[in-house]
Amino acid sequence: MSDTEHVSPTTLSTVDHADAVELLGLVAYTELASFGRLAGDAAHAPTLRQRQALSRLAAAMLDRQERVLVRVDELGGDSADCMTAFDGLFDDFDARTRPSTWWEGILKGYVGQGVADDFCLLAAQGLDERSRAVVVDALTQDTPAQRYAPVIADAAAADPVLASRLALWGRRLVGEALGVVGVVLSRRPALARLVAAGVDAVAADAPDGPGNGPAPATQSWVFSRLTAEHSRRMDRLGLAA
Amino acid sequence: MSDTEHVSPTTLSTVDHADAVELLGLVAYTELASFGRLAGDAAHAPTLRQRQALSRLAAAMLDRQERVLVRVDELGGDSADCMTAFDGLFDDFDARTRPSTWWEGILKGYVGQGVADDFCLLAAQGLDERSRAVVVDALTQDTPAQRYAPVIADAAAADPVLASRLALWGRRLVGEALGVVGVVLSRRPALARLVAAGVDAVAADAPDGPGNGPAPATQSWVFSRLTAEHSRRMDRLGLAA
Repeated sequence: MSDTEHVSPTTLSTVDHADAVELLGLVAYTELASFGRLAGDAAHAPTLRQRQALSRLAAAMLDRQERVLVRVDELGGDSADCMTAFDGLFDDFDARTRPSTWWEGILKGYVGQGVADDFCLLAAQGLDERSRAVVVDALTQDTPAQRYAPVIADAAAADPVLASRLALWGRRLVGEALGVVGVVLSRRPALARLVAAGVDAVAADAPDGPGNGPAPATQSWVFSRLTAEHSRRMDRLGLAA
Repeated sequence: MSDTEHVSPTTLSTVDHADAVELLGLVAYTELASFGRLAGDAAHAPTLRQRQALSRLAAAMLDRQERVLVRVDELGGDSADCMTAFDGLFDDFDARTRPSTWWEGILKGYVGQGVADDFCLLAAQGLDERSRAVVVDALTQDTPAQRYAPVIADAAAADPVLASRLALWGRRLVGEALGVVGVVLSRRPALARLVAAGVDAVAADAPDGPGNGPAPATQSWVFSRLTAEHSRRMDRLGLAA
């Protein structure tokens, strides 16, 4: 079976479509929230060059979000309404993680968006090929995290006090971010189904067959995957996770 | 003389190039500032749909800004440095016009960006054809003002108290915005030269010849043009200017 035939959109049931639209809505909402945060960070950037660079990253992110909403339309969803279920999703996270410096704000974007994107990418494994490609493209192409890792790493390397504060702040951020993932998994069964479907697909493709694939898509399995990715991201900054 | 031959980029002197780069830098900086303001308004929009719509307008504006910076490169300017001279230009304006409601913020964008864009469009009349086209395209294509005029007009029509407050706020905003224009004209001779060159070009093209063209590009002439445009803009909202 070729890649493009794997799960063709035309063979998806209505339920699959509804699940896909829900994940696409989460991706679109996450990008909208990240856009606002990044544009705000940009406005307070220490230099005009950073202000311009961060503003461009924010604008590019919202341009990619548009393609996610186009996919929602293609699946028969409502691109205006698909984000509604997630409205306010990050309010509690934001209230608990108010940055006290510009660097804390930048790390918040790096960690928070990193966890959110990784969760969406995990769930995207359960999508049809085309929707998955749209999500992967939106979340992995020229991300602020890729661009900003060296900037944070350089600043942390030059200032050990900043580095130790940011390491502590990163641990707090990842804990709060995983809390949001827990809320999403428990309240949105469609997303839990997509994560489970993705695990099954990965297991079926594994050389040893389904029996030796990863453990079921429980919340703790998701958390361990997201934590491992978070550790790798912090390593890239030279900070202890 | 055909339009495209009027002032061809290749016939421009180095001084003309430097003046053009200066105006393009102001346009790019103004759009960067508007991007940050609009993204901030978006983040606090009353509804998710408005949040999405305003975010998209902000992102589209920054996409057009990129073309202005490309033109700076084409003229041999430095796209990273061309905005530096204007860094902080709106700080005083922003400090004097802190919106106390979301609607005041939206009107601030409508009025402030309107005056800034009109000034840049006036000065752009003194540019070479290609640079002028880039500026006109950046500042007149699908602007937030065009999109948001009906939204503000509807809200004002439905609420006379809001309408009278916004009318008062609009007068305060335009006064402060003209103050910024005065600062720019007195501190940046290149921009005053472009405005004057634009007036001459318009006068030369007038049916009655140069003698009956507009008055010289004094600050008071610029202010009267900008004020007239502002009145037309407020009319579109159904608010007294």
